[in-house]
Amino acid sequence: MNDVTVDAGALAAVEQRLRDSFARQTMMQTLGATLEDIGKGHVRISAPIAPHVLQQQGFAHAALSFALGDTAAGYAALSTLPEGAEVVTAEIKIHLLSPAVGDRLVAEGRVIRPGRRIVTVGADVFAEGENHAGGRKHVATLLGTMVPVTP
Amino acid sequence: MNDVTVDAGALAAVEQRLRDSFARQTMMQTLGATLEDIGKGHVRISAPIAPHVLQQQGFAHAALSFALGDTAAGYAALSTLPEGAEVVTAEIKIHLLSPAVGDRLVAEGRVIRPGRRIVTVGADVFAEGENHAGGRKHVATLLGTMVPVTP
Amino acid sequence: MNDVTVDAGALAAVEQRLRDSFARQTMMQTLGATLEDIGKGHVRISAPIAPHVLQQQGFAHAALSFALGDTAAGYAALSTLPEGAEVVTAEIKIHLLSPAVGDRLVAEGRVIRPGRRIVTVGADVFAEGENHAGGRKHVATLLGTMVPVTP
Amino acid sequence: MNDVTVDAGALAAVEQRLRDSFARQTMMQTLGATLEDIGKGHVRISAPIAPHVLQQQGFAHAALSFALGDTAAGYAALSTLPEGAEVVTAEIKIHLLSPAVGDRLVAEGRVIRPGRRIVTVGADVFAEGENHAGGRKHVATLLGTMVPVTP
Repeated sequence: MNDVTVDAGALAAVEQRLRDSFARQTMMQTLGATLEDIGKGHVRISAPIAPHVLQQQGFAHAALSFALGDTAAGYAALSTLPEGAEVVTAEIKIHLLSPAVGDRLVAEGRVIRPGRRIVTVGADVFAEGENHAGGRKHVATLLGTMVPVTP
Repeated sequence: MNDVTVDAGALAAVEQRLRDSFARQTMMQTLGATLEDIGKGHVRISAPIAPHVLQQQGFAHAALSFALGDTAAGYAALSTLPEGAEVVTAEIKIHLLSPAVGDRLVAEGRVIRPGRRIVTVGADVFAEGENHAGGRKHVATLLGTMVPVTP
Repeated sequence: MNDVTVDAGALAAVEQRLRDSFARQTMMQTLGATLEDIGKGHVRISAPIAPHVLQQQGFAHAALSFALGDTAAGYAALSTLPEGAEVVTAEIKIHLLSPAVGDRLVAEGRVIRPGRRIVTVGADVFAEGENHAGGRKHVATLLGTMVPVTP
Repeated sequence: MNDVTVDAGALAAVEQRLRDSFARQTMMQTLGATLEDIGKGHVRISAPIAPHVLQQQGFAHAALSFALGDTAAGYAALSTLPEGAEVVTAEIKIHLLSPAVGDRLVAEGRVIRPGRRIVTVGADVFAEGENHAGGRKHVATLLGTMVPVTP
């Protein structure tokens, strides 16, 4: 068995672990979110800009960008931890850069600095739709701290 | 007409403005949130910890604390601005202090420093329920920047 | 020996530990900072607004407010930890609320939520001088995360 | 006169404006900082890890990383604004990623999203020295909000 096979197997185990966790988050279902892509240290999550997740001006609510960005960043951290670990958000900051309009939001989470006690993470959220030049617009950026916990 | 009457009238106008804005936020309805109390520079919003807003361990999702805290802080800022103004979140940071378990979450937003160009705001989120000593527990604190905009 | 005596002794040990650590920080001497007051979970540090710590408009530099606030918050965390512990800043956010003018800056750090793995802290920085109504003005607020380490 | 010449002239004017401002910051001289490189939307500042800017363990003080990162980010914002503008930090968050050891610190500031009312900025701080693999190590990352002001 070569290294590539081992790595693929390990990544498959990580992916299964994240998908199981994601499926237990009822908030993700409420928001219509999909766990799109999982790599070692990076995760992508999307959700439609649906009629039930808007703010008062008709844009996607900041809480939607937050939910997707925070979850993508947290799972990016979790993907670097040993099996059986969980991760909780200690703190995270979000900048809202532009009105979140379009068809859907896509959040890309990543590990900035791994660690045993704390993991520094980031995420960027893009709005996708025909109204944006190039098809997407950068609507939010997040920077935060995840803490590994063993249940 | 004396000052007290004028202030009460002004506050009533602010309250109507905030309630109209809140009613247009479909995300608030999706989360089951209620605009509980409005004062000049402080606002309280609550929501039940319902089965559809949980994270993977069964606690209220961080995005629920964020949604309530960010909205309470934003409306606290809006309550200090002239009629016709809107406010958007430029950035906000949330610390998750304890697992959000119990019957409901209550967010208390406040203005830390008013301003024409930017308003510095804070919010604290408490979980309420019989399981907490004294009936409530501090589960999150937020600190952020709101920007007044004129539509 | 009663509780009060024990507590006073423990606090004296904490104070000695913090003063030793403070004395090793050459940056504090460069900035002219003084460790003013130490309690369990709260610490006060001050520094003059001297000619060598200004920004381009002649106000105290944001880095001075940061240095005092971060250090006061870190020592507030350290005051709650067992002997032999050290503490490092994982992350901290500072809001600059007003121009830092006057005779000196005073930072008051406090523990918001203690913990073994991470400690959530806050600090407020005030400018003191005759030019301020009431003698002082709130110029900065900080919110951050400290991590206990054992050297 | 072609576009390139015009741009070069504009950039030279920006550079002069930033260098004048930098020279008025006595804190930068106290810390031994140098304004190394200026581009449209990005600025690099460095300082030696000198004996007078350390924390209690002998590493560069967090306030040094903050001072360089905040200033590089602020000048990156200023480089995108019209002549006569000034910029102040509304808020900024710093993550300390690794102990700041080595010969010197280099901060690279950049504009994430320009704007008339607020400018979102970031900065990364690296420690340089022989002790680091590849000669440099990522020791801090910052994310903040600058506000243009007209004096």
